[in-house]
Amino acid sequence: MNHVCGTSKIAGCSFSIHPMSEDFAEIILDSLNMVDTSKVWLDTDDVTTTIRGRLEHIFDVTKAILLQVSKSGVHAALQATYSIGCPGDSNGDTCPDESLDRMNEDSSRFIHQHLSAKFSLYPMGGGSYMDTIYTQIEAMKSKGVQVTPAHYSTRLDGDTHTVFKGLEDVFRATEASGSSHTVMTVTVSVNSPSTKEVES
Amino acid sequence: MNHVCGTSKIAGCSFSIHPMSEDFAEIILDSLNMVDTSKVWLDTDDVTTTIRGRLEHIFDVTKAILLQVSKSGVHAALQATYSIGCPGDSNGDTCPDESLDRMNEDSSRFIHQHLSAKFSLYPMGGGSYMDTIYTQIEAMKSKGVQVTPAHYSTRLDGDTHTVFKGLEDVFRATEASGSSHTVMTVTVSVNSPSTKEVES
Repeated sequence: MNHVCGTSKIAGCSFSIHPMSEDFAEIILDSLNMVDTSKVWLDTDDVTTTIRGRLEHIFDVTKAILLQVSKSGVHAALQATYSIGCPGDSNGDTCPDESLDRMNEDSSRFIHQHLSAKFSLYPMGGGSYMDTIYTQIEAMKSKGVQVTPAHYSTRLDGDTHTVFKGLEDVFRATEASGSSHTVMTVTVSVNSPSTKEVES
Repeated sequence: MNHVCGTSKIAGCSFSIHPMSEDFAEIILDSLNMVDTSKVWLDTDDVTTTIRGRLEHIFDVTKAILLQVSKSGVHAALQATYSIGCPGDSNGDTCPDESLDRMNEDSSRFIHQHLSAKFSLYPMGGGSYMDTIYTQIEAMKSKGVQVTPAHYSTRLDGDTHTVFKGLEDVFRATEASGSSHTVMTVTVSVNSPSTKEVES
C-alpha cells in the first residue's frame, strides 16, 4: 500500500521539543506562533506533536520550530521520528495543499544555529538494510556535516540548515534505494552549556 | 553476528532526559547519584547517554533514572532507543558483571509515578515485521497499561513500573519471535501540567 495525498506519498513526523526552562510552555507557544504550519496536518497532545503532509513540508516545519525555539537562547532538545510508507498507515489526516514551496524557508534562512544531533535510519521495507544505512552514513559525510560514529546512532554536528538538508537528503535516498517503509529518528541538542563555546 | 557478553547478547540504550527547568543539570546529576549503574557500561555526552549490558540492567537503569528525576516534581521527558543484536555493533563497551539481580529495584519499587508515553517497535532482523508489531501491540493491552493507537507509534498510559514491565516484555518477545536485530523507541512524559489531574 502506498498512501498518497494527491501525487505524493504521505510523510509524517512525531516530535517533541523540550526547552529546559520553567517557561517551556511559553517558549514553545511563542515559537509555534512564528511557524507557518498551513501545509501540514498537525495534532498535539501531552507527549508529542504529529505532523503529516508532503515530505518537504515535514522537514520545513520541524526545522523552523527548532530554529524558533533556539532563538530563545535556552538549552533545548528536539526528538523527532520521521516516517514514510508505513503499511499500517491510513490515508487520512493530511493536508490537501500539495504545492511544493516551503512556507518557512524565508524566515528560517537567516537564523543560524549550531546543533549537535544523533540520528538513526531504519529502512523497514525491503532491501539490504545494513548496506543502505552504511551508504547513507557515508553520504552524510559529503554534506558539510561533522559525522562521528556512536552506539545505535551516528552523531552529527553543524549548522541547523546544513544538518537538516543532510537529513532530508539521506531520508529521500533511503526511500529511493528501495525501502518502501522508511523511519529515521533524530535527537537534537541546541544551546547546551557543554557546547556553547562552539556556537559563539 | 551475535555480540555476546558472557552468555547474553549485549543490549543497549541511547537516551536523554529533559527536566523542563533551569535547574536541569542539577536535577539530572542528583538523580544519577541515586541510581546504581555498576552493572552497565555508561557514556554521556551533550546529546545522549548510552548504556550497555544485560537487557534487565538496561531497563532497570533507565526506569530508575526516570523515577528519580520524576521525584523532583518537574515536568520532564525521557527519550530512549533500546537496541539488541545490531549487526554493526561491536563486542566492546559493556559491563563484565553478568549477574541477574537488578541493582535499583529495591529503591525504585516504592516510587509511584504516572507516565504517558509513545513507543514504536522496529524488528529489523527478519520475520514479518508488521505482524510482529501488531502482535506486540495486542500483547501490551493485557499488561495493565492503557493502550491507544497513534500515528507512527502507540500511546501508553499507566504507572511507570507497569509500563516499563510491558516495554521489556514486548522487546524480549519481539527478539524471541525471530527478529535478531530489534529496536524500540520510547518517548515518555511525566509531571505534565496537562495531565497532572490524572496523577493526583
